[in-house]
Amino acid sequence: MAKDKQFVTEITPQGEDFSRWYIDVIKKAELMDYSPVRGCIVFRPEGYELWENIQRELDSRFKETGHRNAYFPIFIPESFFQKEKEHVEGFNPELPWVTEAAGEKLEERLAIRPTSETMFGHMYAKWIQSYRDLPLLINQWANVVRWEKRTLPFLRTSEFLWQEGHTAHEDEKDARAETMQMLEIYRDFVEGFLAIPVIVGQKTPSERFAGAVDTFSIEAMMKDGKAVQAGTSHYLGTKFAVAFDIKFLDRENNLQHAHTTSWGVSTRLIGAMIMVHGDDRGLALPPKVAPTQAVMIPIGPAKTRDAVIARVDELYAELKKAGVRVRVDDRSDVSPGWKFNEYEMRGIPLRIELGPRDMENGQIVLVSRISGEKRIIAQDQLVEEVGRMLEQIHQEMFERALNFREENFKAVDTLDEMKTFMEAKRGFVEAGWCGSDACERQVKEETGATSRNIPFEPRQRKSTCLVCGDAATDTVVFARAY
Amino acid sequence: MAKDKQFVTEITPQGEDFSRWYIDVIKKAELMDYSPVRGCIVFRPEGYELWENIQRELDSRFKETGHRNAYFPIFIPESFFQKEKEHVEGFNPELPWVTEAAGEKLEERLAIRPTSETMFGHMYAKWIQSYRDLPLLINQWANVVRWEKRTLPFLRTSEFLWQEGHTAHEDEKDARAETMQMLEIYRDFVEGFLAIPVIVGQKTPSERFAGAVDTFSIEAMMKDGKAVQAGTSHYLGTKFAVAFDIKFLDRENNLQHAHTTSWGVSTRLIGAMIMVHGDDRGLALPPKVAPTQAVMIPIGPAKTRDAVIARVDELYAELKKAGVRVRVDDRSDVSPGWKFNEYEMRGIPLRIELGPRDMENGQIVLVSRISGEKRIIAQDQLVEEVGRMLEQIHQEMFERALNFREENFKAVDTLDEMKTFMEAKRGFVEAGWCGSDACERQVKEETGATSRNIPFEPRQRKSTCLVCGDAATDTVVFARAY
Repeated sequence: MAKDKQFVTEITPQGEDFSRWYIDVIKKAELMDYSPVRGCIVFRPEGYELWENIQRELDSRFKETGHRNAYFPIFIPESFFQKEKEHVEGFNPELPWVTEAAGEKLEERLAIRPTSETMFGHMYAKWIQSYRDLPLLINQWANVVRWEKRTLPFLRTSEFLWQEGHTAHEDEKDARAETMQMLEIYRDFVEGFLAIPVIVGQKTPSERFAGAVDTFSIEAMMKDGKAVQAGTSHYLGTKFAVAFDIKFLDRENNLQHAHTTSWGVSTRLIGAMIMVHGDDRGLALPPKVAPTQAVMIPIGPAKTRDAVIARVDELYAELKKAGVRVRVDDRSDVSPGWKFNEYEMRGIPLRIELGPRDMENGQIVLVSRISGEKRIIAQDQLVEEVGRMLEQIHQEMFERALNFREENFKAVDTLDEMKTFMEAKRGFVEAGWCGSDACERQVKEETGATSRNIPFEPRQRKSTCLVCGDAATDTVVFARAY
Repeated sequence: MAKDKQFVTEITPQGEDFSRWYIDVIKKAELMDYSPVRGCIVFRPEGYELWENIQRELDSRFKETGHRNAYFPIFIPESFFQKEKEHVEGFNPELPWVTEAAGEKLEERLAIRPTSETMFGHMYAKWIQSYRDLPLLINQWANVVRWEKRTLPFLRTSEFLWQEGHTAHEDEKDARAETMQMLEIYRDFVEGFLAIPVIVGQKTPSERFAGAVDTFSIEAMMKDGKAVQAGTSHYLGTKFAVAFDIKFLDRENNLQHAHTTSWGVSTRLIGAMIMVHGDDRGLALPPKVAPTQAVMIPIGPAKTRDAVIARVDELYAELKKAGVRVRVDDRSDVSPGWKFNEYEMRGIPLRIELGPRDMENGQIVLVSRISGEKRIIAQDQLVEEVGRMLEQIHQEMFERALNFREENFKAVDTLDEMKTFMEAKRGFVEAGWCGSDACERQVKEETGATSRNIPFEPRQRKSTCLVCGDAATDTVVFARAY
């Protein structure tokens, strides 16, 4: 009853108010709800299952590349943050502090982890003595907390879920290879599994992770033209090794500092997925991550109903056996049309309809959530065709997102040109940059856009800085960002 | 190098000092390490993988019975604890408090969750309006914190990992059926997967979960005769529904309070597994949960080495394909004897040896970690025989644990009889009880044992209370407990 009522509420069109559209959709599809704690959301089952599917896929990729999972304490002693200067400056403003426990004041305040380089660093110093202990490749799936001023469900919440990989290596070459390997795993996963095209590149110094030597990211464009940083991989050099005394005897019996990396993706991937693929009808879930890939809906009058449902059940069993995540909605108290709307709103990639006429002809109907394409096929082709169509839907979603990005992407020569573009349509801009913080800051002040990254494969390599006109050291992608 | 050094450290024999044995084993096998935060441990990969295997198995059982996962905030506003009186009394003494965040004092203190009945209660009140919204069956895998005075790795730590199921139902009957269903899932899992026999029963009122109407538990005996509560399932009646206003319109259109349950198991299962099965040689892991079920060790002189290793690799591929979690240790810088000791210490259920003589005869050797039994079999029988032997090892481990428990279990009539038994050997006692808190307390004061539960299937139903001699209302299992 409550649900029916909720459902008839309209979704604000994207073109009218993108932010309201986003909130309408994630609430209506029951992905999340607001919690009574400031900036924290509840991940409801429909939303959490997206995270479970992301976890399962990424976890297997991490393990294939030799990483193992572990779990480190959520509490980080205040003194740990003091050990790496840039790190404390970067994270201190966002930390929540436990100051009392079991009725007593603590001698040392404990931060709730915003990230765990310091705790891993402390333990790695105990575990690593020799080059034979390296590389040490550990990942952690955990909750982390950053007391953000402005929050947005999935994209920026005070508590969120993520994975953080922390590795230690004999030398810079190995550590940099790891940094790049994980960045490539993220790119391949986000493009190949979530159907989100990304720009791969290096962060400018001002946007680096606090304490990193180099930070690399993948950046995605949302349907409002804003950017989401979808994953980062950091080469930390020996900074944390020096701060936490991670030393080992190398192959020549010399004491060396280890080179470390860290890398992570979070539940903000869920938000990105929604903002890249969703439309005015609601969610559109990429088939590989969708908890339900196909929904089967029997149609037609009461007198043929039992026979149709019996056949749907047979075909359901075949799909299930073939590994398709499928469900049947055979409720008789809501109309097929109502169901069509509901599953479109929930973003189920594929709808399968069977009615009495289809029964007579040995046919069945497939409808794509993303393109609306309708295919009438022979029932004995169902398993094969569903597989093919899900793959095609994935491709289409990726290509639509890529086309959208390219339409809203412009290489510019000057700040004025950038401003004109950003006023006409929000989007990404690529431009030459002289490498100075001042020019980067000026772009931000005048356009609201920050440097996203220095793409490995820029569209056009620019020779002059868009702000000062001096020789460009890099070609940078700028955008407003979540 | 560091590892070799660590390995030669002896393990304290169980008979000499069981607690030291436990710590020696879990550190040497690299299951955990102490963290710099009081009472918190690091779950190292070897230990965490046990938890991953427990999670995977339990999670599939939860989902088969219609539960879905979600994630709720780790922070619980102080006012929430005030809403259920018994709950606050039970948990308040153990709570850590966040009082400041991002440089400001919070208006309301936030507890780190020790359990989430209150947060689920608050959200369920929003989501449940009609009987059609019921039952609501949600589970959460999460970290929780209880600021314990005395801690012990895995068994009692300030932060630990667990799952907590929270369900809401139309009436008492449904909610009680759920409570019992989950208790039975726990029993079946702990006995069938971890090879730990348990006593299933109901907690006495003094040992109930804070805020429950009835608490049920499974209790296991460690090798030192002490008990570990391995899982609990609670029927909460309408207590939390009243406190948090979880109301729904029933089938007759009357407004009713929902009946709720909660149930959980935690990483203490890892500690229980070790204390039930381990021996003076180290860990002994039950095959179904063991990250590595079998280790293959090529033996013999250098001149036959390549041929032996080649054959081991072929057989490894066969086992792997059959789904056995197997690894090969073909290092040539440590002796087979050293490896045998290492893998025994690490508790790998099955060792597989292949030497030049076995090659000639087309044979291969299997050795059980638990019984030491050695089987020489034809190589073409390997996959089948490994499967059989792993199953047999599971059975043997369960039976050994069961026999040990029965040898250390006594039905008694009087407190004196109990004291004599508990002085001679630590163990479990079953006795009649009149139902009074005073008698239960006297048992504890004079023996250190607490009531574990009122078993559903007592060995002997006793007619008089072991303390006061009055008519017994129940037959209770008493034991010292972790």
